[in-house]
This record gives sequence, C-alpha cells and structure tokens, in this order.
Amino acid sequence: MPQSKITNIMIEFEHIKKLSRTSPSKIVLLIMDGLGGLPHTKTGKTELESAKKPNLNRIARDSLCGLTDPVSPGITPGSAPGHLAIFGYDPVKYNIGRGVVEALGIDWDLKPDEIAARGNFCTVDDKGIITDRRARRIPTAKNTELCRALNKIAINGVEISMLPVKEHRFVLILHGEALSPDLADSDPQQAGLAPRKIEALSPQAQRTAEIANEFVSQARKLLRVEVSANMVLLRGFSRRPDIPLIPEIYKLKPAAIATYPMYRGLAKLVGMQVLPGGETITAQLNSLHLYYADHDFFFVHFKTTDARGEDGDFRAKVQAIEELDNALPNLLNLDPEVLIITGDHSTPATLAQHSWHPVPFMLRSKWCRPDNVTEFSERACLAGGMGRFPAMEIMPLAMANALKLDKFGA
Amino acid sequence: MPQSKITNIMIEFEHIKKLSRTSPSKIVLLIMDGLGGLPHTKTGKTELESAKKPNLNRIARDSLCGLTDPVSPGITPGSAPGHLAIFGYDPVKYNIGRGVVEALGIDWDLKPDEIAARGNFCTVDDKGIITDRRARRIPTAKNTELCRALNKIAINGVEISMLPVKEHRFVLILHGEALSPDLADSDPQQAGLAPRKIEALSPQAQRTAEIANEFVSQARKLLRVEVSANMVLLRGFSRRPDIPLIPEIYKLKPAAIATYPMYRGLAKLVGMQVLPGGETITAQLNSLHLYYADHDFFFVHFKTTDARGEDGDFRAKVQAIEELDNALPNLLNLDPEVLIITGDHSTPATLAQHSWHPVPFMLRSKWCRPDNVTEFSERACLAGGMGRFPAMEIMPLAMANALKLDKFGA
Repeated sequence: MPQSKITNIMIEFEHIKKLSRTSPSKIVLLIMDGLGGLPHTKTGKTELESAKKPNLNRIARDSLCGLTDPVSPGITPGSAPGHLAIFGYDPVKYNIGRGVVEALGIDWDLKPDEIAARGNFCTVDDKGIITDRRARRIPTAKNTELCRALNKIAINGVEISMLPVKEHRFVLILHGEALSPDLADSDPQQAGLAPRKIEALSPQAQRTAEIANEFVSQARKLLRVEVSANMVLLRGFSRRPDIPLIPEIYKLKPAAIATYPMYRGLAKLVGMQVLPGGETITAQLNSLHLYYADHDFFFVHFKTTDARGEDGDFRAKVQAIEELDNALPNLLNLDPEVLIITGDHSTPATLAQHSWHPVPFMLRSKWCRPDNVTEFSERACLAGGMGRFPAMEIMPLAMANALKLDKFGA
Repeated sequence: MPQSKITNIMIEFEHIKKLSRTSPSKIVLLIMDGLGGLPHTKTGKTELESAKKPNLNRIARDSLCGLTDPVSPGITPGSAPGHLAIFGYDPVKYNIGRGVVEALGIDWDLKPDEIAARGNFCTVDDKGIITDRRARRIPTAKNTELCRALNKIAINGVEISMLPVKEHRFVLILHGEALSPDLADSDPQQAGLAPRKIEALSPQAQRTAEIANEFVSQARKLLRVEVSANMVLLRGFSRRPDIPLIPEIYKLKPAAIATYPMYRGLAKLVGMQVLPGGETITAQLNSLHLYYADHDFFFVHFKTTDARGEDGDFRAKVQAIEELDNALPNLLNLDPEVLIITGDHSTPATLAQHSWHPVPFMLRSKWCRPDNVTEFSERACLAGGMGRFPAMEIMPLAMANALKLDKFGA
C-alpha cells in the first residue's frame, strides 16, 4: 500500500496510540469546508480578508496559527482526503473509494461484504455512444423511480441495491460472497464514446466484473424506453476500508455534527458518533451544547463556505464566513480546552472549485503558545507559530494541547 | 517565520501520473544557475540584494515566493541533483553519474550497454605526480586531436570512444558486454598526488576495472610526448539510468533552452526536447518565442550567475543578475500561464563554489496566492507563502497553477 513520506514520525498511529490518554478536557474541531481562498481581482483581498469577522480575529489573537497542506503542496484534495488528513489519517494510505464515499453520503451503512460504485444515469444514441453523461440531469423523483425498476434486476449469487442520490446520480451496491472491488470504471468520463466494458483489474475480480457487466446489460434493456436516462455509467468500485478508529488511536469519545450526509459518513467511518445537527450553524452549535457532556471530541462541519466557493460566488462566501463568525459566541461560551478552526482544503470563489492552496488554521488552548497573528486570514496565518504544515499534524497538536498525550521516551 | 515540513506524499510519480492532464497552458521554468548568495562582507548585501533588478522585483510582487532546499538542509548539490530535484525527481534515488551527464551533454546518445566516464587531460611530472589537473586548459582543438589519437587504443572485448568536450575535458565511453560502472575514480581531485589505480567496487566490475586501467596505461604511453596533456584522469564511471520521463509523468511536451551541454544532457535524460539556444539570455529568450507554440513546458537555463559565483567575482555575479533582469521583458510579453524563476542551488561569490544555502524561488500565475514579498532576494523570500520548502515540490506546484492536475480522492 502506498504510504506518504512523513517526517513527523510520531504521526504513525502505533506511536500516538501508546502516548494517548483519556482526560476530561474537550476538543472542538470546527471545519469550515473549503475555507481558503484567493484574492478578488478588484480588491486584492481573499474571502476571509474581506469578511467582517471580529470573533474569528479575536480567537486568532489568542491562538497558535498557521497554514495547512491537506495532502501536499500542489495537490487538490477531494473532501474525503481533506478530512481524513485532519483526523490524522495518511490520505494516500487511506484513499477511500468514490463508491464508498457516495454510499456513506446517503447514510447507507456499508457492510464489509458489499461493493459500492458511484453511478450516473446517462444518455446514449442508437449506436450506444454517450451523448450526455448526466442524462440532462433528470429530476431526483425520476431517478428514484428508475432505481426502483433496476432494483428488480436479478443476478445469481449477488444482491443488488440501486440507491438514488440527486438528479442523475445513484449508488450501486453489490452484496455477496467473494466479491472484489478491483474493477475499472465503465464511465469513460466524456461524451462521444461508448461506455466501457467493466474490466477486472485482478484475477479475483473476474466474477465481480461479469456480475457488473451483466447488471449494466440488463439495465440497458430496462432503460431502453427512456428518452434521457437510457443507460448507466459506473465508477469508483470500492469496499468499506478497514481503518483504525479514533476511539482506539486517541482514546477519545468522538462525536460529529454535520449537515451533509457525506461528512456524517466519513465521521462514522473513523468511529465518531453522529449527533443530530440541523440545517444551520446555529442549530449545529445548539446540538453541541446539548451533547457537550457526553463526548470529549467534537467535529463540527460547516459546509456553506465550500458550497458558495464552488458556486463562484465571492460575496456569498464572504457572507458564509460572516454567518459563522456571528454564531461563534455560542461556541465560545462553552470554552472548550482546545478549539481548532480550519478548513479541509481551499475553494477560492474565483476558481469555483477545490484547490491546492494551503488552508488557514488556528488552535486556541490554555497551553498553546500564541504568536503575533491578530487576524484570521491566509496572509496573516503565514506568519503564525505553525508556519505551513501538513494537516496530518493537527491531531497530535490537538491532543497535546488538551493534555491528552504522555511524554515520549525516558 | 513560515516553514514547510516535507510530507511530499504526492510527489511519488505513481500518484502525479494519475492526476496529471494535458491542457493548453504554458509553464516557463527559468533556472538562474547558482542563484543564491551570501552577503558581501562590506555591504552586508547578497548578490541578489545588491543587483538592480526592477523586473525580478515586479514579478516577486505578483508571485508566490519562498526558498527551496534542492536536496535537504546542509547538503550542497551538484548540478545534476540540483536540476533533477526541480524537475521532480528524488535526487537521492536518481543519482546520475558524472560520466553519463557529460556524455549526454555532448549529444552522445548513450546506450544501455555503454559505460561513460568524465575525463580530464592533466599534467604529471617525471614521477607521475599531478602538477595540473586541467593540463593548463589546453585548447579544444588540441583536445580533439588527442582524443583522435587515443581512439586508436585497442583492448580485447571492448570498443573505446574518446569524445572531446571543451578545453581539457573529455568523455570516455566503454562499449561492450558485461561491463559494470561500479568503479572508483582515478582522479584524486587534487594536484600533488599520483592518479589512482581504478578499483572495482564490486566483484562484477573486476574485468571493467582491468579494461579501464589498461586504457589509462596505453593512454599514458601515447601522451608521453605531450608537454601539458601528458596523462588522463577519469571519474564518475556510470551507465545511463532507466528513469521515468517528464512526458510520461506529467503528460507535458517539454523543451529545454540551455547554452551549456551538461544541462542539455540532463534535459534529454528526463525526456525534454532540446531547442537551439544561442550564447546569451537574449538569444535564448528569442528561441523561446520561436518555439513557444510547439511545447507546453520550457526549461530555460541561465548559466552566468553560477559561473561568476564560482569565479568568486561578486561584482560580476551581480552584473549577471542585472543582465538577466534586463532581458526579462522579452519573456514577460509572452505572459506564460505559469512563470517560475529560481536556481538549482546557491553559489555565493564569497565562497566561490556551490553551497548548501536555500535558493530564492518565485512562481507567478493567475492562480497563485500572492504573499507580501515585494523583492526577489534571499531574505525577502523567507517571508513568502511557500516559506522554506523542498525543490521537489516545485513541479506539483507548477502543474497545479497551470491547472494541469486533477483532484485527488473522492
């Protein structure tokens, strides 16, 4: 399995596991998804630099600040590696498949003997050539209806579940014995080509490839009458990975408050208990209050910064930051022993997509060594006490500042 | 002060290969050889800090700046590792022999069954002691004549090619079956000693060692009549390494514009097409214009900064920087999507040799996140957005800023 080159040796779970200990102190990790930005062409200021954010700035003054590289310089992370790195997992070693992430994202409790694939309904012409990879984004209701029809496909020795997601997106679950996720995509990722036959990437995957191809063939027949969604594309075949859990590694009792299914799924994957949240950050922080006594680690996920960044709406991303800043007093009055505010990656509104740029980070605790940073922003954090550092180092820092790590060595 | 710790996760070619994609955007990598310097004892300013360089400063203002470690802190790189690191190759893993680099530098298309060594014609006294390692820098024409004579040396089972380079320098090629490059140098690297007998460093190299010693012995006889060039020194026995190529790793169509043979050789080794250049940076940049449409990656090599640094001529190195700065507008009007200006290592004029000091770096692109650096110099770049970072991270950054890297993970 590929492993990253880590200079920080102690990040290896075997070491951290030996040093970690339970204590009553609380760690709150607030992830502002897609937090990092780029300067607006007119003002020269990033989204964070443009936002009115007195609370974030006040926290920065008392914090240890820095900029994190979620994976490594130049690499744009998807949501899964972005979060896993923050939770302390080597995102290359624990590279979670697309199918798994999608399945977790719709609250499907993926079993070890299930294979998940991300699917698209698509449009093909008479010759079977893809004309629209997204089947003109059929309504979700139509998707649900089609999934119900395809659920009836029967193939010997395997149970099939078609799970609708949004518009043209679905998840295919294959449940059975001796299945292997070692399959190439059928999705050629562009129109003008025919869907590919699904190839086994290892001998053990031969039977699973046949099953998947048989599924596609039957689906094609059943969908023939459809105008837009007359074919399916599959990609990211994967199985729930067997990964060490946060309660085991860090001896924490972790909980997650996230509005989007995918982040709840990721949280479950690493052993967090998912708490009820609500749609707004205010509701999420109310939930934090409600369950504060029951856990010692809280992952609070704020999605709006990323969503507005992906929309390319600079102003709306600034407003999302201000909305969060406004809600912060309700978090601050809990006064957690360790408060971390950062992002899983950058999503500059000017770029309107995830990016490789490092992400502002701050950690406040009684035991942090504050630096000279007085503002929470990309440029200000550059001068912070952590400088630029790998996101994988966040968890040991959090644990240390919560006085939950023993001394190493004699 | 910002610092970058090496995670280098995605630098592994297997990962970058999966993420890289072709796009029309252009990357120009301008290497000012030996760029980094040390303060002049009188003024306290480095060569870069002393130079009048309005164009470099202007670029720095719009750039992401930093300081690179070519290999790692404290390590002084040769030209090959200095450049290979910038091209994304682990310079320790891909340690290219001197003989290979020299052979490639004179356009010798080195075959896998050939062993190359870098050679010097030298002067020895009656007792065989070296009095001048460079044979008073004999003219290249004389060198060519001598090489022609030594080409006639016949040794059983091996074909010998003596290739003249410049002044006292040549390349020896041994071509034959079951040869091994695992040989120690004959060159003791200082006058006052006798040339060493070439030792086999492994049992398989025994026969090759005998061949090489026989060659030296016959060469000594043939050169006995010469006044200056009456002996040869050999070093860096090596074989062409099997390394992944830039077009495969990054899906780029790379080209090199370099006046010195060695850099053209290195460029060829990593799969670049070598373009005609000319002797001055102005001529090189004209060549860049001429071939700009045909490639998407350009390595432009400026040698003078290193040459004047090695001469120990502070003033001349400052002038070399100013000469380059003067030529820059002709590069800037191409407005490449990504422009990188850095060096392969430092060559402080006060030290008059390559050194271990980190090297100023800047990257300008529409998508870089500019920092507060307003001057291109060692001290100013220290506060840059990249902080201090390994040169091996340059290529992923270049690719990201050219929007030539896909997102990693779901």
